[in-house]
Amino acid sequence: MEKRVYNFSPGPAVLPLPALEEAQRDLLALPGTGISILEISHRAKKFDAVIQQAEANLRTLLAIPDNYRVLFLQGGALLQFGMVPMSFLRNTGGSADYIVTGTWSKKAMDEAKTQGTVRAAWDGKPGNYNRVPRQDELALDPKAAYVYIAINETIQGVQYPAVPEVGDVPLVCDASSELLSRPVPVGKYGILFACAQKNLGPAGVTIVIIRDDLVARAPQDLPSMLNYRLLAENGSRANTPPTFCIYMVKLVTDWLLREVGSLEKMQAINRRKAQLLYDAIDASGGFYQAHAEPGSRSIMNVPFRLSDPSLEEAFLKEAAGRGLVELKGHRSVGGCRASIYNAMPVEGVTALRDFMVEFAKKRG
Amino acid sequence: MEKRVYNFSPGPAVLPLPALEEAQRDLLALPGTGISILEISHRAKKFDAVIQQAEANLRTLLAIPDNYRVLFLQGGALLQFGMVPMSFLRNTGGSADYIVTGTWSKKAMDEAKTQGTVRAAWDGKPGNYNRVPRQDELALDPKAAYVYIAINETIQGVQYPAVPEVGDVPLVCDASSELLSRPVPVGKYGILFACAQKNLGPAGVTIVIIRDDLVARAPQDLPSMLNYRLLAENGSRANTPPTFCIYMVKLVTDWLLREVGSLEKMQAINRRKAQLLYDAIDASGGFYQAHAEPGSRSIMNVPFRLSDPSLEEAFLKEAAGRGLVELKGHRSVGGCRASIYNAMPVEGVTALRDFMVEFAKKRG
Repeated sequence: MEKRVYNFSPGPAVLPLPALEEAQRDLLALPGTGISILEISHRAKKFDAVIQQAEANLRTLLAIPDNYRVLFLQGGALLQFGMVPMSFLRNTGGSADYIVTGTWSKKAMDEAKTQGTVRAAWDGKPGNYNRVPRQDELALDPKAAYVYIAINETIQGVQYPAVPEVGDVPLVCDASSELLSRPVPVGKYGILFACAQKNLGPAGVTIVIIRDDLVARAPQDLPSMLNYRLLAENGSRANTPPTFCIYMVKLVTDWLLREVGSLEKMQAINRRKAQLLYDAIDASGGFYQAHAEPGSRSIMNVPFRLSDPSLEEAFLKEAAGRGLVELKGHRSVGGCRASIYNAMPVEGVTALRDFMVEFAKKRG
Repeated sequence: MEKRVYNFSPGPAVLPLPALEEAQRDLLALPGTGISILEISHRAKKFDAVIQQAEANLRTLLAIPDNYRVLFLQGGALLQFGMVPMSFLRNTGGSADYIVTGTWSKKAMDEAKTQGTVRAAWDGKPGNYNRVPRQDELALDPKAAYVYIAINETIQGVQYPAVPEVGDVPLVCDASSELLSRPVPVGKYGILFACAQKNLGPAGVTIVIIRDDLVARAPQDLPSMLNYRLLAENGSRANTPPTFCIYMVKLVTDWLLREVGSLEKMQAINRRKAQLLYDAIDASGGFYQAHAEPGSRSIMNVPFRLSDPSLEEAFLKEAAGRGLVELKGHRSVGGCRASIYNAMPVEGVTALRDFMVEFAKKRG
């Protein structure tokens, strides 16, 4: 078999090997059916069991309260960037507050401008998006249609240590690159969404966790696939959902429950992994520089630079030679980035840390 | 290994076994990468090659003219039902013509009503959607924003033998359940779209073939994922596309090119398969009754009834006992339906035909 490498891609990203192996084993026929998961009807009993278990796993792991629906949608987080303002800003005459901590919250704010008025309740641009705001820095409008955050910015690697307080205004959260990496106080949110291709499964399905009162308020003058109420009423099956992707979410969450047990335990592991890298960076005497300030540093995405940018190419090439791949930073910001999602084993992070120390010693 | 059955599901549907086997073989690591297709970056060179080959295969098979873009989108045909009128009907002050031949064109018309004025240029409801219209029955508005058809109605099994003439008005076509089953005069269409889970791959990707002038006219006041121009300019990668589903489209079209060779040959095979079933139905002395009139009969979906509906349950049960599954008609219309897409082998159709003849002899 082809040797697998350590894949530090920000998404699509590394998946748990046992989940891949189960998918591979059953790919020609799901046990008891004689039909591949790629071929099975979304109305088949066997698929009912898959989607129900995927939802049950998410409800268990995230302790999702009963007054929230869990939807499996398409279109990625980017479609949610549009659906949220189409549903809850357009035609309200009000405005929405966006807390801008990096590329993705900025992008979400720009998408919302097509649908109504938006305000930046804080903008980290002057600091080059290297931290999240303190609570006392937020200029929140108590009449806002909603407040929007990206709890973890995949590109800048800044992550809120705790959920900002926003009073009675519904809080909307893009949790794409952190969902399932640590416990989540779901009850603080109106809408929480995440594309799957970080901690949940392959690209092609987006998890939306939405409170019942927002489902009830969703406007009915939109096409079905943009109508949260209709999607919720149809149990994510207003049309054929991305069946295979949902199946993979089930396998990945099965793995998390079976092999880790809880998000508290997953968080402890993720913190240890992140600390390995941040410690190496901070101890490098400036050879490596982390993008994010301590206190805002992501445990999922670790962007850093080499103080001598001319060494970057050699760094990436030598790393790849050791099976440590996809360490290039996002094309919009450059530098390097290690994404260390749930499925990245400690061994992979240790191998990267060891390489970084060695490379700095040799070239520093 | 689990024994595979003959799966007559209308979609998600049977896929070519060689495509499933290749996906299974490489599921833990794509050759030369050490990374699963489920984990690979949508910006990786290896994925560039996948999406480019998928598009090239479609362009070869369908002889797509150079002035058409090929998009790989999410949201199924149902999102297209909304995007088309949002883009080309809303804010025009005009109306769009829908030719209503069954459940899906009716549904598309209803979705468009959220965005503007629609007219039924013909409606097959009085005949219970058992045929497509003749050209001289169409009441087309020469000023219509567009004309809309479903070239093959998956539920009613009615299929146009040829594309209706609509003059200079852009023709929009839902080809979900027939794309790749026969040659398509792409140049007659403004937009042609198809969800993958019939002849193209698994659920989760939708192919949109759209003419350049419509791409150029697409409004810019919509969120990115609803903006045809932006999606075209970004080569279907305005965000992370459903990478695995696109990979499967590549494998399925590889298979079609390799093992069948052309859509002319595929059509000949599909006609033979369909004829086996229609002949058995017509020769049953009324024991079975086809839903669609000759001349409008689909070569992809064959809905039929037993003249004694009380025998239906036994029919479905005995068929399943022989490994002939998913023959129940759509819950909205009842009866039976055999969907016989490209990947259903002649042997599967022959086995069904033999069973039907035998069942009629025994119970008739």
